[in-house]
Amino acid sequence: MSFDILQAKILDKQNPTVVGLDPLPDYVPRHIMDRHIADKGETLKAAADAFYEFNCGLIDALDDIIPAVKPQSAYYELLGAAGVQSFKKTADYAKAKGLYVIADVKRGDIGSTAEAYSAAYLGGVKIGGTELFPFDFDAITVNGYLGSDGITPFLETSIKRDKAIFVLVKTSNPSSAELQDQEIGGRTLYTVVGDLLAELSKDTVGAFGYSRIGAVVGATYPDELKRLRQRLRHTFFLVPGYGVQGGGASDAAHAFDDRGCGAVVNSSRAIICAWKKTGNSGRDYAEAARSEAIKMRDDLRGVICFK
Amino acid sequence: MSFDILQAKILDKQNPTVVGLDPLPDYVPRHIMDRHIADKGETLKAAADAFYEFNCGLIDALDDIIPAVKPQSAYYELLGAAGVQSFKKTADYAKAKGLYVIADVKRGDIGSTAEAYSAAYLGGVKIGGTELFPFDFDAITVNGYLGSDGITPFLETSIKRDKAIFVLVKTSNPSSAELQDQEIGGRTLYTVVGDLLAELSKDTVGAFGYSRIGAVVGATYPDELKRLRQRLRHTFFLVPGYGVQGGGASDAAHAFDDRGCGAVVNSSRAIICAWKKTGNSGRDYAEAARSEAIKMRDDLRGVICFK
Repeated sequence: MSFDILQAKILDKQNPTVVGLDPLPDYVPRHIMDRHIADKGETLKAAADAFYEFNCGLIDALDDIIPAVKPQSAYYELLGAAGVQSFKKTADYAKAKGLYVIADVKRGDIGSTAEAYSAAYLGGVKIGGTELFPFDFDAITVNGYLGSDGITPFLETSIKRDKAIFVLVKTSNPSSAELQDQEIGGRTLYTVVGDLLAELSKDTVGAFGYSRIGAVVGATYPDELKRLRQRLRHTFFLVPGYGVQGGGASDAAHAFDDRGCGAVVNSSRAIICAWKKTGNSGRDYAEAARSEAIKMRDDLRGVICFK
Repeated sequence: MSFDILQAKILDKQNPTVVGLDPLPDYVPRHIMDRHIADKGETLKAAADAFYEFNCGLIDALDDIIPAVKPQSAYYELLGAAGVQSFKKTADYAKAKGLYVIADVKRGDIGSTAEAYSAAYLGGVKIGGTELFPFDFDAITVNGYLGSDGITPFLETSIKRDKAIFVLVKTSNPSSAELQDQEIGGRTLYTVVGDLLAELSKDTVGAFGYSRIGAVVGATYPDELKRLRQRLRHTFFLVPGYGVQGGGASDAAHAFDDRGCGAVVNSSRAIICAWKKTGNSGRDYAEAARSEAIKMRDDLRGVICFK
């Protein structure tokens, strides 16, 4: 089962880190970007190819120490169709290197539209008599504001193709309290959402004890994270907010159960932009990312006991 | 201002319809799909080119009677990067034909990621010294579950580039009540969201009286639609749920203010798949769409009094 595969990779590397592959034009070292611009002009295609080269270098430098990557779709959509092509190629490259790939797309819609999103990212589409798989990620993030008929199409595709989803529950941003912390008959909205996910996916629990619907819960709200971990025993957590956003390892530690299982902690900029602090103009970007990723791994190992 | 432009187009055509360009492979008549498959094989590219040809035919048949189109991103993402290219080309074609183009992407994220989405769909990105505009839609839909810091980046780009957004408030699907109708201190969640949007955009009201943040409110919930119209006087409504989903013209009519302004009503399948009911294998798909769109226009004119 999809989350069993992810959990096994985490235990194998003894590292619950997922690296966010979230490039922006100025996150890519000049020597890479300039070469693609020299070749293809100041175009979206040049930047998209630079993103892909940058990502491949990061993946090569990290694939023996991390279990998973999480490309954030927004940064690729920013380069139009050429960017989306690099998003897909990045995912394929990461999968070929043995990494679990979570597409951070935060999609959410209803009925046939949710089915189209599920088919796009987790399933396939039939053109004539041929079934094609446009992206084929291992998991995606989903926004559940529309209710269960906006979530079940993703769950159904996940079951059919051994995939998984992470639905936004308590996000890491400063404004997340505005709606998510509102009280509804004694429960916060994020708790209502969390309970709904647990209910929808209760028949999909795998060997490690997690269902196919995971939850996004920010490390920036450690108390909420702790309470949700106790409440949602069969829910795998994707934890943003570590590092640049202010969450520490001891905050993120609340996401793990007493076996040291059940969560991945994301870091993006701190790792992929680590080269900006070394003073070498980015020629050492892969090495800089690797040493930052090792630092994060050891930071998390210090507070999580893998059993 | 963006919604003034939309409202002027609605009054010009005396028609508040937005046509959803939401193709699926089997919505495209065989003679179009087969020709592209014969040329490019059973590939995503063949289907994407077929989508674009189908859309251009629809736009040509409709551009003198409708003010706006709303391509739904999911159906293009279903065809990967090739589909995203057709999404962009469809938007460009519709704009060239004088239509207002709403991209139904329902994006929502935080901080720099929300900025990237805003830049992708409403703004631009700098590659080297050149600013490029990856999509350049007139407006997009946004999911606001993350709170105001997930909405303001879209608003800021909208102000800078004379664009607009529609945030999900009360969606048209059967499960929308599960979360959106929950009571929070005397208000439903969707009312809390609606009030938040009005507050965030109160300084952006244009000549027709609407701010840059519109709301998505389904015609399938006419009582809620009526109450929201009364409450959110400066909010432009995008109304799904008419037709196939069960909302009638008299339901949708609640979205309009007493000048007959302030809303667009969406229809997708009923118009773009109208050819399936004529028994001509789709060779008349454009004419079938046109007569269905005229029927819808006249249906809405029967209940809305444009002043």
